[in-house]
Amino acid sequence: MTPVENSDESEDNEQMVNVAVLGYGTVGSGVVEVINTNHDSINKKTGDEINIKYVLDLRDFPGDPVEKILVHDFNTIVNDPEVDIVVETMGGVHPAYDFTKQALLAGKSVCTSNKELVASHGTELMQIAEDKQINYLFEASCGGGIPIIRPLNSSLTADEIDQITGILNGTTNYILTKMTRDGSEFEDALVEAQNNGYAERNPEADIEGHDACRKIAILSSLAYGHHVNFEDIHTEGITKITATDIKYAQEIGAAIKLLGTSCKTENGFYAMVTPGMIDPTSPLYSVNGVFNAIFVHGNVLGDAMFYGSGAGKLPTASAVVADVVDAARHLHRNIMQNWSSHSLELKDISEMENRFFVRVKGTVAGKIDEITEIFGRVEPISLPSVPGEFAFITKSMKEADFAAKAEKLADDMLGRIRVFF
Amino acid sequence: MTPVENSDESEDNEQMVNVAVLGYGTVGSGVVEVINTNHDSINKKTGDEINIKYVLDLRDFPGDPVEKILVHDFNTIVNDPEVDIVVETMGGVHPAYDFTKQALLAGKSVCTSNKELVASHGTELMQIAEDKQINYLFEASCGGGIPIIRPLNSSLTADEIDQITGILNGTTNYILTKMTRDGSEFEDALVEAQNNGYAERNPEADIEGHDACRKIAILSSLAYGHHVNFEDIHTEGITKITATDIKYAQEIGAAIKLLGTSCKTENGFYAMVTPGMIDPTSPLYSVNGVFNAIFVHGNVLGDAMFYGSGAGKLPTASAVVADVVDAARHLHRNIMQNWSSHSLELKDISEMENRFFVRVKGTVAGKIDEITEIFGRVEPISLPSVPGEFAFITKSMKEADFAAKAEKLADDMLGRIRVFF
Repeated sequence: MTPVENSDESEDNEQMVNVAVLGYGTVGSGVVEVINTNHDSINKKTGDEINIKYVLDLRDFPGDPVEKILVHDFNTIVNDPEVDIVVETMGGVHPAYDFTKQALLAGKSVCTSNKELVASHGTELMQIAEDKQINYLFEASCGGGIPIIRPLNSSLTADEIDQITGILNGTTNYILTKMTRDGSEFEDALVEAQNNGYAERNPEADIEGHDACRKIAILSSLAYGHHVNFEDIHTEGITKITATDIKYAQEIGAAIKLLGTSCKTENGFYAMVTPGMIDPTSPLYSVNGVFNAIFVHGNVLGDAMFYGSGAGKLPTASAVVADVVDAARHLHRNIMQNWSSHSLELKDISEMENRFFVRVKGTVAGKIDEITEIFGRVEPISLPSVPGEFAFITKSMKEADFAAKAEKLADDMLGRIRVFF
Repeated sequence: MTPVENSDESEDNEQMVNVAVLGYGTVGSGVVEVINTNHDSINKKTGDEINIKYVLDLRDFPGDPVEKILVHDFNTIVNDPEVDIVVETMGGVHPAYDFTKQALLAGKSVCTSNKELVASHGTELMQIAEDKQINYLFEASCGGGIPIIRPLNSSLTADEIDQITGILNGTTNYILTKMTRDGSEFEDALVEAQNNGYAERNPEADIEGHDACRKIAILSSLAYGHHVNFEDIHTEGITKITATDIKYAQEIGAAIKLLGTSCKTENGFYAMVTPGMIDPTSPLYSVNGVFNAIFVHGNVLGDAMFYGSGAGKLPTASAVVADVVDAARHLHRNIMQNWSSHSLELKDISEMENRFFVRVKGTVAGKIDEITEIFGRVEPISLPSVPGEFAFITKSMKEADFAAKAEKLADDMLGRIRVFF
């Protein structure tokens, strides 16, 4: 056989590719469901037959079709030379990290939806995969079902990406959309999201921005080609956003979204997770409810955006299974990923230039001179329904300069939100 | 060397990959510009050095940097064994077809932006590429810089796609956006588009929907896995859309877009290019100006959308160069494409079910009984600024049934537009 005939992608004889799924929770059971539901078309697109040989879970599932292939001991999987691909849908860093590393070292490709693990140990795990000429794939880790990891690796290769900004968390986007549509306060919208299954009982990872932080770290690592440490990313959640903030946003034709954003500037790279006001010129403006979207700007492509279901059992499973297909097509060949182990040093955001929406106590007549002295000429925004305060938007300035100016307002400043238009 | 070490993607030694560009027009010169501008990052992502060895054009370009590598005879390129990849940015079917076929038969991968050629001869050219274990890639043929071909081939593989709907033509979207914003008539908006370089002097291919037709044929072939003949697709352009139509659309909160759409139903596959009304629940609603977007629905993924610059020198070149990178990464290995030579038989649209916006002469009082008798109960829509007529939206019905009913209205029907909500 010549190397060409030996290529996986040109194989005419269908082979069996054996998969083990770690964790039979929401995403794991979704993966089993998708592979079963779309069995024929998936096998056709793979060129081989995908067979789920094992499902690992500590629990039993009496009566469930996976009962017969359920195992409780990871060693059964890692020691079985017939297993080609491991799907890790356990979440969390431990024991997912150990299982993933063992699987890769045993020559099995791993496909995961685990953003915590990719953000914290992705560099090491990708290196093992490259050394072993197998793959560590994580399309589902950012944006659920939205294809974004593979486009960054394989489609946007002609560009130098200089900005990536995403609505990366469905829970917070649902809450903010709800607050906008109903005029409700954060706490009420959160409770409703919890009751509708769009927010967890312990919602901290979502509402404090930690989830979006890991995702923008992963996306930025791929966009700029160097490892971005999620712990270096300035992160603010949406817990301080009020119904009044949203009223002002509506008045000025803006929407408030939780944005994970990073950019390449003359001074270096910045990244942050922050609530931000965007206007209708941004394609992210119309992304509502549990939908997610990722905006990318390339130096030759210009603007692009990828939109879809950011979470949910089947959309997330769709992305994991697409990785399984890709891993099966490249069983013993590493797919190049644009993410080097070299760390990208993020600049401190104090040097980043932004505009700010600011709410202050008092009346325009009584306060505008003081505001003008501190911030220069601004256009005051008053809402008849919100007496005793007004708002304005600053010109673009360094974060550090804004902080110094804001300090002068002391307790008169009722809130501030970054403005991205 | 083992096959694994022989893999292009794991090659550590950088090689020279020679490229020849056919046609130094807008896109061709963009390709040269992008490869030069982003030289370092492109080579890093390729793993090899991309070198433009030839540019083919009948014209001379004295003083242009390509002067030294300009050739007038295609044989120079096809007979040079050092040329690995041919970029075809000539447009049109001839001689692009002959050059592409010769290049592929000579073992050179071809990357193209030529939608006419892909729609008319893509099946044959892809088959030659597969037989030769090289690649015929055409990311730039649909949606300009928007990554959509590669996502369909490599990312949406877990799904059975049941709908694909795109705003696929920048010229018509610019014209419709202009008409919406200014209240202008089609002819005036067209002249303005021509003056601003957004429409050609001979705009027929755009405004009559032929361009969108080829694009939806290509996308549908990939989405459903079988060749869709563009000549089978019912195609209507935007020349009959008036300022009054747009006034009505605004009144009911809808936007009119030229849509290329295809879907899989219980009865079979349908495809058409048609102006259509969409409402804000569609992510395509906010896609304005020269931007394009492609909405895809998968049976497990749900809704997804890909948005970006649908035309323009650099965005289109960005997509072509991304193909060059992919071709270089897979120099002697065919990338699986989900497009079989088997033809997909489209159902006649007479059986397709749609809703219709209809404008009729007369007053609501004088006409509603007749309308109700023909179409059943409908909600009349009157605009004070448009006396002597009114409009309504039908319930969903077969195209053939609508045609029969519309015939009863005879000359009283002033127009009809399909409604996709």
